[in-house]
Amino acid sequence: MANDKKSNKPLTISKREFLEAFAAIGGVSAVLSALDGWGMGIASAADTPPELMGRAGGTNVLILGAGLSGMTAAYELTQRGYSCRILEARPYAGGRCQTSRAGFQMTDDQGETQTCDFDEGLHFNNGAWRLPSFHHSVFHYVRKFGVPMEIMVQENDLGYLRFDDARGPLAGRRFRRREIKADMRGYTSELLAKQVDQGALDNELTNQDKEQLIDYLVREGSLDARDLRYKGTVNRGYGVFEPMGARTASEALAFKEILQSGLGNTFQGVTQVARPHTMYQPVGGMDQIAQAFEREVGHMTTYNAEVQELRQDDNGVRVPYRDTNTGEVQIAEADYCITTIPLIILSRLPADLPDRCKEAIAAPGITPVSKLALQMNRRFWEEDDDIYGGSSTLGIPGHTVIYPSYGYFGNKGLIQSMYAIGRPAEEKDGLSLGEQVGWAIEHSEKIHPGQFRRHYDDKAFSIAWHRTPYNKGGWTAWSSQDRQKYVSLLLEPQGRVYFSGDYVSGLTAWQAGAIESAWTQIEKLHARVMRA
Amino acid sequence: MANDKKSNKPLTISKREFLEAFAAIGGVSAVLSALDGWGMGIASAADTPPELMGRAGGTNVLILGAGLSGMTAAYELTQRGYSCRILEARPYAGGRCQTSRAGFQMTDDQGETQTCDFDEGLHFNNGAWRLPSFHHSVFHYVRKFGVPMEIMVQENDLGYLRFDDARGPLAGRRFRRREIKADMRGYTSELLAKQVDQGALDNELTNQDKEQLIDYLVREGSLDARDLRYKGTVNRGYGVFEPMGARTASEALAFKEILQSGLGNTFQGVTQVARPHTMYQPVGGMDQIAQAFEREVGHMTTYNAEVQELRQDDNGVRVPYRDTNTGEVQIAEADYCITTIPLIILSRLPADLPDRCKEAIAAPGITPVSKLALQMNRRFWEEDDDIYGGSSTLGIPGHTVIYPSYGYFGNKGLIQSMYAIGRPAEEKDGLSLGEQVGWAIEHSEKIHPGQFRRHYDDKAFSIAWHRTPYNKGGWTAWSSQDRQKYVSLLLEPQGRVYFSGDYVSGLTAWQAGAIESAWTQIEKLHARVMRA
Repeated sequence: MANDKKSNKPLTISKREFLEAFAAIGGVSAVLSALDGWGMGIASAADTPPELMGRAGGTNVLILGAGLSGMTAAYELTQRGYSCRILEARPYAGGRCQTSRAGFQMTDDQGETQTCDFDEGLHFNNGAWRLPSFHHSVFHYVRKFGVPMEIMVQENDLGYLRFDDARGPLAGRRFRRREIKADMRGYTSELLAKQVDQGALDNELTNQDKEQLIDYLVREGSLDARDLRYKGTVNRGYGVFEPMGARTASEALAFKEILQSGLGNTFQGVTQVARPHTMYQPVGGMDQIAQAFEREVGHMTTYNAEVQELRQDDNGVRVPYRDTNTGEVQIAEADYCITTIPLIILSRLPADLPDRCKEAIAAPGITPVSKLALQMNRRFWEEDDDIYGGSSTLGIPGHTVIYPSYGYFGNKGLIQSMYAIGRPAEEKDGLSLGEQVGWAIEHSEKIHPGQFRRHYDDKAFSIAWHRTPYNKGGWTAWSSQDRQKYVSLLLEPQGRVYFSGDYVSGLTAWQAGAIESAWTQIEKLHARVMRA
Repeated sequence: MANDKKSNKPLTISKREFLEAFAAIGGVSAVLSALDGWGMGIASAADTPPELMGRAGGTNVLILGAGLSGMTAAYELTQRGYSCRILEARPYAGGRCQTSRAGFQMTDDQGETQTCDFDEGLHFNNGAWRLPSFHHSVFHYVRKFGVPMEIMVQENDLGYLRFDDARGPLAGRRFRRREIKADMRGYTSELLAKQVDQGALDNELTNQDKEQLIDYLVREGSLDARDLRYKGTVNRGYGVFEPMGARTASEALAFKEILQSGLGNTFQGVTQVARPHTMYQPVGGMDQIAQAFEREVGHMTTYNAEVQELRQDDNGVRVPYRDTNTGEVQIAEADYCITTIPLIILSRLPADLPDRCKEAIAAPGITPVSKLALQMNRRFWEEDDDIYGGSSTLGIPGHTVIYPSYGYFGNKGLIQSMYAIGRPAEEKDGLSLGEQVGWAIEHSEKIHPGQFRRHYDDKAFSIAWHRTPYNKGGWTAWSSQDRQKYVSLLLEPQGRVYFSGDYVSGLTAWQAGAIESAWTQIEKLHARVMRA
């Protein structure tokens, strides 16, 4: 998934290993979870920007990149009297805080341009797409700029699970997540309750403890309190409807069959801390956050400005950049520079930086990431399946069915049907958009038989971040060793150059990392300027 | 909670019994769950209105009550050529689909008038406040009328639990729900995993099953896979922050201490089917649904029309009603009548109905229900506690802390701090609004110490449905026996009078019940008219 830098080839992981890890917690989250283990922290470490005491009238700062990190630096420094200028290679701000809607254009590094033709009112977040409640740094600006927010439904127990390669009779059958949760928690509660009841824990628990524990298990597992057996529960869903709205619980699956299928091994006692049931998104698309920043710093930004070199000496920094429209090269000069350029891009630029710093910049790989959204002409997942947000999964690498968390009860909607990270993303690189759509529909039909193909509205948009100019990756892939070895170096200024971006934060691939790294770096810069 | 009709006194239930039931699943849901057991079904039985074949030109139908049931009947019958008229006692439509916002006035049956003075943009749903995804009948009209909808966060694992009367050292301490969930599922998974590991289930499970089960338990309980022990998990929340956003898991509580406290007995393996993590609400208040209906049928509605009698003979129905502004009594006449008047109100009106029908009308009690919302001048639960929607609980009857599911990241907000059902609602009847607020703040301070009192914005609104004219109850309280005995009778026309409302549905207290009962009754009426 991450690149193995030694060989410069993608890390090899068997399909079965990947599938198991992937299926393990229901899809994408498994992959991200693994990434967490590889050194990508998820905790927001700061709530508010640093208090920069004193004003720095006249100090010029050149910021490379108008993503959230660069715009945060520009916004905060400007408040303190700095004169900031941003160079942005693209014609618009935001970086990976980017949303596609009708008219949005994206040209990949093969020169192929996609123009988004989604219907009015439909949008898809190409990059960042969800915020957990403790990413305070992002919310600091959401509040300051008054960005309207809404719930992003991360977990929905009504979503489907289906494993075609599973062992046993449940293979190839579709279940609601809540059916599997209810049955697994029911049967395991029954097993433990019986052990407790038969005295297996008498040495460890008092009678009162045992009573309380059995009460707990009866409730947790929806057990019959008389015989401590799990016999299904209406909370797993209804079976047959009866007159007057009376309801019959659907029938529980057989314990051994669920065990065999592995369907139970798709959730945890509590959700991952950074991926709870409900997360947050701006109303109208994630880029509403970028646009809020842009309203503040857009006037100091030069767009279509492709940085060519990064030069510095004792007196200042000097950055030649090429106007992507005219081809003309101009020079930007300043007292200091904050670069937010992705390391994989920066590593290819001529730069006046120490060798050890260049080694750090060249060290990490990137994570290939691809996404694909399909427009549907009817919200069948809502109308026919009672699913409003959340996702379904087949456990197939790169495939997903993520339902939109906006536009509920409306007519059309977008379903994300690919979220490929690492190898599965690279495997899609050879496919045309039409072929990607075909792949997505073929799989998604297993979740929504007879619906997905029928309601596909012949409009789709895909993005492969590792094939996107000025990014060339979904996010920076540090090995644990390299992160330990190099990030502290990049957190220190190299001459007059400061490094900012999620890649030098404990929150790689999160917007909070972009913002908090800017806070860290401007604090250092300001202290230096005040000392000078 | 429901009234015992025999004695006409509220059903007696000890405080301890109530508290235990209440605390059991975190508050209100426990009570509603009990009500389900008492015959209040929750399954939507119909998705779309009945197809009424043929047109009934000229048939007049008088509908009593402009709540959702009455307006549904009027809307659908009008489509089929009926000439409908609605009499509504209040000056506005909606019944318990009612929202308070600045200027909203409510006079109780003691003649006391409250005028809502919440700030612009803040609203509180006095009655119906959440819709589960399978209440298709409501969503039929949401879609038809294009009512904008949003997520209502029912369950939020970041909400707090605190039991002051609990046994053991956890009494009087505040915990996040996810802390308790993680620890209980962790420790119980550990107990079972060890039993499995030690061979206690060798007779029942194959080695492969055992392996799969242990895998499941390791994941479910966040166990250390090496020794199968639960040692806490970052998913229960962070402890200490470290540089670079690195995070330490917060420390697990002791198993026996949680058992003693009863804090674990507050959730189930899956949420209740009608109260999942995410539910739905109209943007801007539940009354947006009523207003959508009113746009269709408002022109055929007479407001301030208090029904005095319900008369019928072989030729038609005749309903004297009093204009509550002028006191003048007028007569409405029609071929048929559909009454949606709550049974407790109807039982007091002179009516030409068979004795057995009058017995049915008089049979059920009502459920006292009170709610109180407080305006806060800062959204401290969001800014300081990362809580966006959901609730916290002390397990104290009638008390709750329900956070608003709209206006996130804004400045002010409303917190519902009372949801009293049954006896606890009646106990609040003697209190003035100021006293209710004092009671609510005193308790809520235990959940949000130093915040609740400080940020109370001196604006509150309360409603006691059992003291509200034209309702006199939160909803109809049928005993199981009476429901069996009488509802089928009320579902049949009594002469030219039809009964409609959630009280004759399997969905008492839900809007879907109001709508579906109307569908049931208009189908019967139309069949009769077509036969004639």
